[in-house]
Amino acid sequence: KMAPGIGGFGGLYPWGDDYLVAGTDGVGTKLKLAFETGIHDTIGIDLVAMSVNDIVTSGARPLFFLDYFATSRLDVDLAEKVIKGIVDGCQQSDCVLLGGETAEMPDFYAEGEYDLSGFAVGAVKKDAVIDGKNIVAGDALIGLPSSGVHSNGFSLVRRVLAKSGLSLHDQLPGNNGKPLTVGEALMAPTVIYVKQVLDIISKGGVKGIAHITGGGFTDNIPRVFPSGLGAKIFTNSWEVPLVFKWIQEAGGIDDSEMRRTFNMGIGMVLVVSPEAATRILAEHQGSNSTYKIGEIIAGEGVVYA
Amino acid sequence: KMAPGIGGFGGLYPWGDDYLVAGTDGVGTKLKLAFETGIHDTIGIDLVAMSVNDIVTSGARPLFFLDYFATSRLDVDLAEKVIKGIVDGCQQSDCVLLGGETAEMPDFYAEGEYDLSGFAVGAVKKDAVIDGKNIVAGDALIGLPSSGVHSNGFSLVRRVLAKSGLSLHDQLPGNNGKPLTVGEALMAPTVIYVKQVLDIISKGGVKGIAHITGGGFTDNIPRVFPSGLGAKIFTNSWEVPLVFKWIQEAGGIDDSEMRRTFNMGIGMVLVVSPEAATRILAEHQGSNSTYKIGEIIAGEGVVYA
Repeated sequence: KMAPGIGGFGGLYPWGDDYLVAGTDGVGTKLKLAFETGIHDTIGIDLVAMSVNDIVTSGARPLFFLDYFATSRLDVDLAEKVIKGIVDGCQQSDCVLLGGETAEMPDFYAEGEYDLSGFAVGAVKKDAVIDGKNIVAGDALIGLPSSGVHSNGFSLVRRVLAKSGLSLHDQLPGNNGKPLTVGEALMAPTVIYVKQVLDIISKGGVKGIAHITGGGFTDNIPRVFPSGLGAKIFTNSWEVPLVFKWIQEAGGIDDSEMRRTFNMGIGMVLVVSPEAATRILAEHQGSNSTYKIGEIIAGEGVVYA
Repeated sequence: KMAPGIGGFGGLYPWGDDYLVAGTDGVGTKLKLAFETGIHDTIGIDLVAMSVNDIVTSGARPLFFLDYFATSRLDVDLAEKVIKGIVDGCQQSDCVLLGGETAEMPDFYAEGEYDLSGFAVGAVKKDAVIDGKNIVAGDALIGLPSSGVHSNGFSLVRRVLAKSGLSLHDQLPGNNGKPLTVGEALMAPTVIYVKQVLDIISKGGVKGIAHITGGGFTDNIPRVFPSGLGAKIFTNSWEVPLVFKWIQEAGGIDDSEMRRTFNMGIGMVLVVSPEAATRILAEHQGSNSTYKIGEIIAGEGVVYA
């Protein structure tokens, strides 16, 4: 009854000429930083982003989103900030906030804390689904920039923070005097790639898409292409954001663990034909810039060059 | 872009000739009883039930379900029990478990504890949607039996339990010697009404459906009919299950609060034409019995007679 999910980013349900594509996710322990920084009005963007970025990998246009908000004792002001972010996220992904549940669960969550989960449903024509099966050696990997850590790897971030001796209110080291606290850098909301990705897909040549979440390039890119193929990443082809450099240095973390945990500055990877790559790179410059970050090779997994 | 939800039980999204109907819910503090009794293999049935029973109120057939399972440190054996219940619930409602997320969130949940949320999507032809707008005075209320407390009111249940002096492992008082602990009675999984309700709908005459959750009859039944109408409930028309009698007595709770908190033995209420009522009552006897529990009157809200 069910089509196999592609790369497992979203589940596909056949429905007439379409697949309905559904995804669910939370924002993990990034919430702890929301509690500590008091920045609650963008965590809802993260929540929407995690699900809609998953379903757009199959080419699906998000239709609607629902949220689940659980806390021990409802703080209406705080909940409104969270919902505001969810509404913003739905607007950014052009989908309807169709419903939600606010659960008061005494003795489940610490004072002032909460958990969130989100569910997105989208649709894509069956004959237009992006499923990676036409990927061949020589195809290009196009990277779309992230805004920072997005919503994965925060358990490691929190350990690094504890070890660093810095607080969330200290300035991020190495930022050339531009004011930006560690907390602000870490809380930057996840980029919602829906409109940009759907626009690129509409022009042709996109064969596979990987949403770079927990597991980084190393675990997420191989999910989208057939066996017998691998990805070579040109590690100098984009600028790794400062926040990752700080995490790596303050935590004494090696390259391999960084790449298996964080997006390193690229939140979405598109596998496209060489012709499409040339066109996409020319069309997307400036604020919506894209990078050619690698190519498909015979082999397996991800190699870094 | 969005059709107004009907009674707010599920959100409706227009899609060709259909509405996609989506609902999300958790199981609330019934989870605390799962932790205390160690009964983890049916809480997933409750989870599926809460969402699919919501969406079937608009006449939607559930298509697929996704779950979100969050815990501080994953206990694979425990998670497997929970997932088994979710799989059972999906089978009972004839829908596909399309995906899910297992989130490990250190320092969020107490040792051995977890939270769950679920998300169901169904579909109903636009011209077959059950929306309550044809309900008139004189229509009958048909009740479908619950298995007990289902998944609402457990914060009150836990207070009553603390006050009663009984433990979850004690026998439920008044059960005529039949072995049943308080914990077992309270953990009875929520009835999934999907197949029965869709069967009744298919034979015609169903105008509105209320899923009796938190708020009981008092808050949930008026959600389905137009203003200017009320419901008269014949309180002696079905047998209130023993577990509610025990809760009321042990907690010293008045009728009004009981009826505004619990389902009192009726988990789903169908508003049907008088002719349909006669047929439904004749066809559903024995294990799938139904009760005529009241009727629609001019007025507002719910009156108990």
